[in-house]
Amino acid sequence: MNRTDDLNKWKRAVELAMQELIDSSEMPKRLRDAMAYSLEAGGKRIRPALVYAVLETYGMSLERGREVAASLEMVHTYSLIHDDLPAMDDDDLRRGRPTNHRQFDEATAILAGDALLTDAFRILTQMPLSALDIVEIIRIFGLAAGSSGMVGGQLDDMLAEKRNDVTLEELQSIHERKTGALLVYALEAGAILAGASVEDRMHLKQFGRHLGIAFQIQDDILDVVGDEETIGKRVGSDELNDKTTYPKLLGLEGAKQALDQEVEAAQAAIESLSVPAPLLLEMLSFVVKRNH
Amino acid sequence: MNRTDDLNKWKRAVELAMQELIDSSEMPKRLRDAMAYSLEAGGKRIRPALVYAVLETYGMSLERGREVAASLEMVHTYSLIHDDLPAMDDDDLRRGRPTNHRQFDEATAILAGDALLTDAFRILTQMPLSALDIVEIIRIFGLAAGSSGMVGGQLDDMLAEKRNDVTLEELQSIHERKTGALLVYALEAGAILAGASVEDRMHLKQFGRHLGIAFQIQDDILDVVGDEETIGKRVGSDELNDKTTYPKLLGLEGAKQALDQEVEAAQAAIESLSVPAPLLLEMLSFVVKRNH
Repeated sequence: MNRTDDLNKWKRAVELAMQELIDSSEMPKRLRDAMAYSLEAGGKRIRPALVYAVLETYGMSLERGREVAASLEMVHTYSLIHDDLPAMDDDDLRRGRPTNHRQFDEATAILAGDALLTDAFRILTQMPLSALDIVEIIRIFGLAAGSSGMVGGQLDDMLAEKRNDVTLEELQSIHERKTGALLVYALEAGAILAGASVEDRMHLKQFGRHLGIAFQIQDDILDVVGDEETIGKRVGSDELNDKTTYPKLLGLEGAKQALDQEVEAAQAAIESLSVPAPLLLEMLSFVVKRNH
Repeated sequence: MNRTDDLNKWKRAVELAMQELIDSSEMPKRLRDAMAYSLEAGGKRIRPALVYAVLETYGMSLERGREVAASLEMVHTYSLIHDDLPAMDDDDLRRGRPTNHRQFDEATAILAGDALLTDAFRILTQMPLSALDIVEIIRIFGLAAGSSGMVGGQLDDMLAEKRNDVTLEELQSIHERKTGALLVYALEAGAILAGASVEDRMHLKQFGRHLGIAFQIQDDILDVVGDEETIGKRVGSDELNDKTTYPKLLGLEGAKQALDQEVEAAQAAIESLSVPAPLLLEMLSFVVKRNH
């Protein structure tokens, strides 16, 4: 089986899980429609894929990751809905379709985001795991998504956009929280689900950390050199917006070198695992070699 | 000790707990400021008071309810921040101070709400309880606050405001989810924290249900007959806004009768408990006799 087959299989698994979990909950029709609209909007489903990749690495069934995968994508989706709001990025389109508040209305979009976030935590309580493992997964999910993780990173990113003197250290800290924290969580939760050793859990977190930074550097590089039609936004938009990026701070060549370093560190973390993990290497190469 | 002393003691306990829990978490200063601004805005702290009243009823320390009380008030506060947004109720003032988005900005208010909601779930994982009890409390908290509870009720309330044919059944269903669900949760979580029997837990939930409806009917009655200065909003504002209320559907006398029925049912639930619960009767009378 090749990488695309794996990704498609994992994509189908998480999409089915989300649909079942939303369908099994009683809620107003308009709220369900708004939540489903954004959940069904597609995307790469990278976070759930990482959970599934860890489970397959340890020979476990995908079913075991059902709630973690679905709740991860629900929280990622809520963050996109809120980010698109007029008061935030004010985007009319997401993945070629009207954003949630354009398709419904702003109030509905705010509430759909709130419901996705709240329901994500509830869904985790249904996991077929020991109560101790459930509590631990909810704890690290809350840390990754909340004030010290994604939301905090998003706020610092907003503040940084107004400044012209953002350092490499600050840029890294913003990305580590805004996008990196949920990626690291995906791998750590996968490790808990798979019953991996403490050492493997640590290596998987390290892998996630380097993967996250590589992901962001690649994003920034694509904005400079990518093909406009493929990435679906105007190339050079970061420069136009005077956004601080890796190429801006390091130059394009410097950014490519930094990317190589992160990829090597990620590979080293994989090689330190007690089991071979070709699927995780595939995910790494997917993230780095993607052209959008 | 009288009712006001109890309420003040519980208010101080939850305010201290929230401050400690927010202070112990690393996050951007502006995010902390925005979260603390609304958490410190005061209010009656009725939900935490219900948790503490149950604990004292069973002779337990307030300390045991620390995380449940704080997370309840954090979720209540996030819902107020998001409700006040321009796209929702568009309020400039809350408890005599600028609303969160007026004091900071809309984006910060959205993120402060998101962070309060996320951190509330994380805080519950720190409770000094068995993992099984923690998972159960998180499960019922998610049900009460999410798509099938508060958020769903809020969305249906928005839709109902545009209609002139809302039935008593619909009105009840909206209130049961929008405000009732968190009140019932406060009582049920209190029961779990106190190690109450299954029967007592059921009676406490029933008490919460009737207390919640009584609370709402009293709110609606106060809008008709209350003293403008005491309740701090224009009396008769519901009628001006053509809002469906208990007095509108039942007449003022009918609403008062319905209130009496709920109070009696709430008292009956208390009397069915295996222990005397004067503090819960005090809370009931506080809710019904309040003039704002």
